[in-house]
Amino acid sequence: MGGDHGPAVTAPAVTAFLAGHPDIRVRLFGEPAVLRALSDDRSGRLALVECSQRVERDDRPAHALRHKRDSSMWRALQAVAEGNADACVSAGNTGALMAMGMAVLGTLPGIERPALCAQIPAVSGRVCLLDLGANVDCGPEQLHQFARMGTALLQVGGSDRPPRVALLNVGAEGGKGNRAVKAAAALLAADSSLDYQGFIEGDQLLLGQADLVVCDGFVGNVALKSIEGLARLLLRRLRESPGAWRKWAAQPLLAEAFGFLDPAQYNGASLLGLRGVVVKSHGGVDAAGFGYALGTALAEARGRLPERIAGLLAAPRPDHSTDD
Amino acid sequence: MGGDHGPAVTAPAVTAFLAGHPDIRVRLFGEPAVLRALSDDRSGRLALVECSQRVERDDRPAHALRHKRDSSMWRALQAVAEGNADACVSAGNTGALMAMGMAVLGTLPGIERPALCAQIPAVSGRVCLLDLGANVDCGPEQLHQFARMGTALLQVGGSDRPPRVALLNVGAEGGKGNRAVKAAAALLAADSSLDYQGFIEGDQLLLGQADLVVCDGFVGNVALKSIEGLARLLLRRLRESPGAWRKWAAQPLLAEAFGFLDPAQYNGASLLGLRGVVVKSHGGVDAAGFGYALGTALAEARGRLPERIAGLLAAPRPDHSTDD
Repeated sequence: MGGDHGPAVTAPAVTAFLAGHPDIRVRLFGEPAVLRALSDDRSGRLALVECSQRVERDDRPAHALRHKRDSSMWRALQAVAEGNADACVSAGNTGALMAMGMAVLGTLPGIERPALCAQIPAVSGRVCLLDLGANVDCGPEQLHQFARMGTALLQVGGSDRPPRVALLNVGAEGGKGNRAVKAAAALLAADSSLDYQGFIEGDQLLLGQADLVVCDGFVGNVALKSIEGLARLLLRRLRESPGAWRKWAAQPLLAEAFGFLDPAQYNGASLLGLRGVVVKSHGGVDAAGFGYALGTALAEARGRLPERIAGLLAAPRPDHSTDD
Repeated sequence: MGGDHGPAVTAPAVTAFLAGHPDIRVRLFGEPAVLRALSDDRSGRLALVECSQRVERDDRPAHALRHKRDSSMWRALQAVAEGNADACVSAGNTGALMAMGMAVLGTLPGIERPALCAQIPAVSGRVCLLDLGANVDCGPEQLHQFARMGTALLQVGGSDRPPRVALLNVGAEGGKGNRAVKAAAALLAADSSLDYQGFIEGDQLLLGQADLVVCDGFVGNVALKSIEGLARLLLRRLRESPGAWRKWAAQPLLAEAFGFLDPAQYNGASLLGLRGVVVKSHGGVDAAGFGYALGTALAEARGRLPERIAGLLAAPRPDHSTDD
């Protein structure tokens, strides 16, 4: 029921996904009339599950948690908790999804709140940025957890080579950074389960030199939104500028340049650290975009991501003091 | 002597600046042979001051501070301290300029380190972002100081209407943010010398809804560099893409879109909180770009910016507890 378009996007996306993946089944949670009107399943592998409530975009997480236990969001998470589903995908309220995920599924040992992680297109391949705002005021231990959880995420369905991990910082040299980043650098460098590369600055984020960039959620949120803000601004300026034929001529160039800014192309942020697979779709995407999020969830469920993360988190900590 | 091009840029910029401003005088500090070869002053208002050293790009601030007291940077700051100049402009090593500025000029009462502040182009007008990396691990009191110093900066040479101040945050709603930002919001809201507007998110930075955006230096540095990184990446992709005539056709569009990303057009970052006017030019600009930094310094000197900042800092603090 979530996102800007609700079942008008999610229902057709599920229909297409079922057609493309003959070995999966989907449970679609939502208000009955809407679901019935929109879903034209021919696969026989779609189940509609009726819910009397929905979480609204501006519901406060604490409110949703208390008063919306028959919402599509809560019920879908419950299906994962009860073993009736292997993953949950939602385009709804991120804060509510996080709070309900914690309440329904619980977190892995040592994790206080799940981290939010997106893979954004870079010059070569993709870069995975976490945390994106779920955790602020992160200490060095938490940044270290992010590095391990992100490493597990990137190994799911990929090669066994550990991904290259970098810490987002204000400079590349050793002495730079705030207290948490300096202490985290020592932890990451001493951890043999990670391929730690060192610091990375904001202007290097999209260059693909690291597979995984770790940062406090406040910083990651501002970085990602700053990038999105500039992209949107440029597109707006280009649309407003005069000269129709020039604009037409520029189209392929612009498509190439801005293609990788399309949220549908890097859709599906993972909530890492929960005892179950939960993927958050961008609220504004179309059915194709929502399909990416479904694919992300499928890969994470097949790769048993929560078990992998639990394994990496339980690995012995590097023997290194953090008395910075 | 600083920046990517040294006196090859700064000397012609000064010559042009002298021609455009008949009522000012300039002292150019540097190595004698280079200065004489490059400056063709006809104004009679240029003095060449010989120095035997220069601060290198990769000099550590502590090293420069101890061993480079006959550098052009140190000597230029000394001229301000001794009353022989009203402002200092440098394209050199930012960390060294900060450290030397503190050592030679000293900071204003209540200021530990100067803040670094740039005015970047926005959809309507400009937006002033501070701090940009000089101060990390900022507490609420420091963010409050930034708001007052930035307000003084924007009032110099401008209207007396106080600029609209916003706090950079991960959400627009009240409960969002890290500890420092939440506590700072209370301080800013209670300060009647400020026109505090509330929170702003990263994707709103360039829209011009606020004149001044206050943040921790770690966050501001990452935000600005993320924006620069995307801009550079897009320009590179466009240059590499095939189709010469299409590229030619797209030129005016792109110039319009990317013009505001040219560092020369928002050149001249101010070091706020020193007992003197110090402006840092981007290291990669041409003479026209360096001229912007000279203009910024002139406006700040004429507006007696340090005195204004001292006045605002001394204003009574809002009667509001910060026990967050």
